[in-house]
Amino acid sequence: MFDDLRFNEAGLIPVVAQDASTQAVLMLAWADKAALEATLRTGFATYFSRERQQQWVKGETSGHTQQVRAVYVDCDRDAVLYLVHQTGAACHTGSYSCFQEALIADRVVN
Amino acid sequence: MFDDLRFNEAGLIPVVAQDASTQAVLMLAWADKAALEATLRTGFATYFSRERQQQWVKGETSGHTQQVRAVYVDCDRDAVLYLVHQTGAACHTGSYSCFQEALIADRVVN
Repeated sequence: MFDDLRFNEAGLIPVVAQDASTQAVLMLAWADKAALEATLRTGFATYFSRERQQQWVKGETSGHTQQVRAVYVDCDRDAVLYLVHQTGAACHTGSYSCFQEALIADRVVN
Repeated sequence: MFDDLRFNEAGLIPVVAQDASTQAVLMLAWADKAALEATLRTGFATYFSRERQQQWVKGETSGHTQQVRAVYVDCDRDAVLYLVHQTGAACHTGSYSCFQEALIADRVVN
């Protein structure tokens, strides 16, 4: 069912993981077709590690799994959104979200 | 200030845009260093179009701009999050968010 997604030249597609409860953006990682299939089959967020060049079930060793509530694809079919129930911290640093460091914050918008 | 970000081999980094009010994930696009600098300088979300190979101010023609409230970088410095005030639809299809199509939805999580 992922044949019409637009994977990059390495066969990967970026995946945004968002907490289904808090709506926080937790992380951005990558998946290949097999990782997307595993996510749908198992219900646990699965990615492809570019550094280790292998499939990676989030939380497999840490226990900080992501149970997937929904999977969305974007309009041009080159990005995916996992809506997840996050157990523990999403980030390997121990932070709840990987997006902790603000380059700018609290800018006033009229 | 972006010298320590990990841009890809094309000089780009993925950017997630999230609505600061609704918390919805609106889109995933790409930015180069100049687009990030323009975003911080102008306060309007700026990207780099891979198709057109040029800088792109979101909403420049449609009026559907994104005023940037905050910019975050992730733990491994290879992804960026724009927290924005979205005017009108974020998606070029007219949808509020680019992530409209559910591959799976409403999966029950215990």
